[in-house]
Amino acid sequence: METAEVDRMANFKGHALPGSFFLLFGLWWSVKYPLQYLSQKVNKKSHRTYCFQRVDAIEGGIKILFSLIGMLAEQFVPDGPHLYLYSGEKRDWVKLMNWQHTTMYLFYGLSGVVDVLTYISEVVPRGLDRLMLAVAVFVEGCLFYYHVLNRPMLDQHIHSLLLITIFIGAGSILLEVFLRDNIVLEMFRASITIVQGTWFWQIGVVLFQPWGGPVWDENDHSNIMFLTMCFFWHWAAAVTILAVNYTLTYWYGWDRTWGRPAGMSVVRQM
Amino acid sequence: METAEVDRMANFKGHALPGSFFLLFGLWWSVKYPLQYLSQKVNKKSHRTYCFQRVDAIEGGIKILFSLIGMLAEQFVPDGPHLYLYSGEKRDWVKLMNWQHTTMYLFYGLSGVVDVLTYISEVVPRGLDRLMLAVAVFVEGCLFYYHVLNRPMLDQHIHSLLLITIFIGAGSILLEVFLRDNIVLEMFRASITIVQGTWFWQIGVVLFQPWGGPVWDENDHSNIMFLTMCFFWHWAAAVTILAVNYTLTYWYGWDRTWGRPAGMSVVRQM
Amino acid sequence: METAEVDRMANFKGHALPGSFFLLFGLWWSVKYPLQYLSQKVNKKSHRTYCFQRVDAIEGGIKILFSLIGMLAEQFVPDGPHLYLYSGEKRDWVKLMNWQHTTMYLFYGLSGVVDVLTYISEVVPRGLDRLMLAVAVFVEGCLFYYHVLNRPMLDQHIHSLLLITIFIGAGSILLEVFLRDNIVLEMFRASITIVQGTWFWQIGVVLFQPWGGPVWDENDHSNIMFLTMCFFWHWAAAVTILAVNYTLTYWYGWDRTWGRPAGMSVVRQM
Amino acid sequence: METAEVDRMANFKGHALPGSFFLLFGLWWSVKYPLQYLSQKVNKKSHRTYCFQRVDAIEGGIKILFSLIGMLAEQFVPDGPHLYLYSGEKRDWVKLMNWQHTTMYLFYGLSGVVDVLTYISEVVPRGLDRLMLAVAVFVEGCLFYYHVLNRPMLDQHIHSLLLITIFIGAGSILLEVFLRDNIVLEMFRASITIVQGTWFWQIGVVLFQPWGGPVWDENDHSNIMFLTMCFFWHWAAAVTILAVNYTLTYWYGWDRTWGRPAGMSVVRQM
Repeated sequence: METAEVDRMANFKGHALPGSFFLLFGLWWSVKYPLQYLSQKVNKKSHRTYCFQRVDAIEGGIKILFSLIGMLAEQFVPDGPHLYLYSGEKRDWVKLMNWQHTTMYLFYGLSGVVDVLTYISEVVPRGLDRLMLAVAVFVEGCLFYYHVLNRPMLDQHIHSLLLITIFIGAGSILLEVFLRDNIVLEMFRASITIVQGTWFWQIGVVLFQPWGGPVWDENDHSNIMFLTMCFFWHWAAAVTILAVNYTLTYWYGWDRTWGRPAGMSVVRQM
Repeated sequence: METAEVDRMANFKGHALPGSFFLLFGLWWSVKYPLQYLSQKVNKKSHRTYCFQRVDAIEGGIKILFSLIGMLAEQFVPDGPHLYLYSGEKRDWVKLMNWQHTTMYLFYGLSGVVDVLTYISEVVPRGLDRLMLAVAVFVEGCLFYYHVLNRPMLDQHIHSLLLITIFIGAGSILLEVFLRDNIVLEMFRASITIVQGTWFWQIGVVLFQPWGGPVWDENDHSNIMFLTMCFFWHWAAAVTILAVNYTLTYWYGWDRTWGRPAGMSVVRQM
Repeated sequence: METAEVDRMANFKGHALPGSFFLLFGLWWSVKYPLQYLSQKVNKKSHRTYCFQRVDAIEGGIKILFSLIGMLAEQFVPDGPHLYLYSGEKRDWVKLMNWQHTTMYLFYGLSGVVDVLTYISEVVPRGLDRLMLAVAVFVEGCLFYYHVLNRPMLDQHIHSLLLITIFIGAGSILLEVFLRDNIVLEMFRASITIVQGTWFWQIGVVLFQPWGGPVWDENDHSNIMFLTMCFFWHWAAAVTILAVNYTLTYWYGWDRTWGRPAGMSVVRQM
Repeated sequence: METAEVDRMANFKGHALPGSFFLLFGLWWSVKYPLQYLSQKVNKKSHRTYCFQRVDAIEGGIKILFSLIGMLAEQFVPDGPHLYLYSGEKRDWVKLMNWQHTTMYLFYGLSGVVDVLTYISEVVPRGLDRLMLAVAVFVEGCLFYYHVLNRPMLDQHIHSLLLITIFIGAGSILLEVFLRDNIVLEMFRASITIVQGTWFWQIGVVLFQPWGGPVWDENDHSNIMFLTMCFFWHWAAAVTILAVNYTLTYWYGWDRTWGRPAGMSVVRQM
């Protein structure tokens, strides 16, 4: 295997890994929030509320874990910076790309810490967990923004589409600080996170061809046109996934196990 | 008839068709929402509420129908892609323009599906229909945005004015997720949709002269100045249409058929 | 008097006239809204509410009057378009600048009409008057925006500062659709309108030297620096005017004439 | 000591001074708001509310004092303008930089005045103090924005990062006009103000090397990459400072002195 090949696979994995993280969280949220919403619609205040709070804490723990893995991986891969920020006689910066990724993971880790603290103590103000998550997503977006300037056209375009999901996501999470437990915002967050995850994969596939195939022509305008459109196909797919998960949650989880409450029926009577 | 002539007419129709769709919906909304608002002002909870919900479902059905027609037309017109995305030895993209339009219609179709589902089942969260519509309009705006870059000045300017209505429209629909049944937002949506419709027609007329006449000089700055101003004349016309429809709704629908309630009179007493 | 001199004075008046309109409205609002707020703080529902509604209607009437004067002046000044939009063999556009100004006045006129209608009939939805005003200001901003592109640097800079007040003003009026009778927003509107008025005058003075004096060097960067700073001095002046008018309203209007209510005193007791 | 050296130190101090002001206020707020929030959680309406109002007034007084010092310093330093705005035969502008800084301080001073007035009199509308602060921050941002255009790349980048904190800060303070006493917004304001303070210091250190060391290469792209990342490390540090101060406030202030209320415990029972 040539070095170029190895490099390409490394780069692909560098996109597939965070992509998988986001996809996982998105898919999980697309099940969790419908479950929470539907169960709250039936019993206003049940012991299930505490279950969901515990789940939030576990989610925070997983965020911390993933962030630590990400940070350690970025620092201690064979050609990572190994915690050196500058070195040599001329005090050159060491592997700034890895340091930037470490910074991104750091903020998701902080968001996880706030999640856990919110569960442990009642003193943490309500909404701080959402604010910290919004900040983490915003920081990711800003770092990407400066990251991507001065790249070839196709590369820049495909990343700028990613930025759309990131900043819209940050905005919608920010709204959740003030409109907490709003199912529409939560489902939107789930779907935009799924799109972010799949689009990371798409970027990896387009730029680094993990399974071989011809290289995409960076200067062909129709490639750009296709990717713009393809980006919104990911949105349509995410909407479909959410619709399916919502329906499954309703049928299997809510309807059978918990019993159907008297006042609710699937088809509205007229 | 020359080929250029045929092409020009095809392009004109490509603008007039979606324009007519938007104009139709805008005009319909400019009657529907005043009707709903005025009837709710009289009887708080009547059987009419269910009528309006049924109307929403029918609206959703029409959206689905229009979107299907649009998608099929874009795919199966004689020089359409016929569902081929790429072809040939070099795997060139096939008719990406038609694919982009298909994508736009797809999202309006999804919005129609959510409208219908909201009517069928009480489980669909309130506000999801508005979110899906806002997303559809936003997707249309984004695709247009990338579509229009790198065009001649006049073309770009006239389309960028269209983008103003699209993005302002998307923003106002997004507000409706949180401020549902707000008559001011609903009337604004009606008027901005009317403007979008008439401006599509204007673009078609300016760029493709369906009824002959001289071609507009793309480099004449005063053409640009005129079109900017003309765009806001469309706004003024939409405002007038809304005022007229609101008044007619009040006079013919509300006042005569349903009876005037005791506590309301046209002129406020002092 | 030379032609250049005449032109310069015409241009100066073209800025001073709308500037005076805005200044007048801003000053009036800086008295009206404190008066309304302070009187409502005392008597929750009094006959004074109706007074203020009547005042709103009169305001609307004045807006209509001013707009008509503005529109007629733009059309029928000696070198105006006299309602011709295009003319001649080549169908050249006639005096588009005057037509653009006519369009701006038209929207303020429409806003006045909605003000009057809101007073006459209870059927007009609450908040529509503010929306129409926000639209009028937004249209003014957009027309100015396209107006100013491709101008010399100093000209563009001084107008872009005007755009800041216009778009911020439009945004704050839009908020009033949803947060009606919010004294903070109303006082902000008063002050930003005052700034708009005085800045129109400043533009006239800088670009056309009505009282003689040296022409400003368009390429001197320190002129730009000064004007940026000067713009915010206008803000500070507007804040001072509002503070003075608020205090005078409190002392002369509220305190003496209407009597001081038991529960309120100027200095909070501790 | 050479002149260049003196100049460098002057420039460094010009950044360190406002930086220290912001840092001080940020740190103070990071203690004050948790204290206020936690004490209000226990006793809904106590005499402590009046304490905090008195503290707000003192804060306003300090703002006025700092602004006066800043304004006088900018005017009367040896090479300041000494209140001359233009001079000489050609009426050249005098020391516009100092005048711009004076303008910035002026608005913070006005904000202080509104703070004090809000305390003295009940007639001042609630929320006006926050609006005035938001305006002051916005004015600072605008002046910086025009200030920084046409600078070398590194200089422009490091200042544009400052602009992010300024405009986000202005936006969050604006929200406080409508969502007063929201602890999440108040803690966000505290942290963004701390970041603004420390970043002013960072700018001073990077551009003027107060303690010697090599000059930063303005054209080295990796310097830009490092600073982008470093900027968010300041955010992470601010978050940590807030977490620590919040915890300390809870442990030392609230828990011991005021007694722990029955209904609240640190660890939520399940």
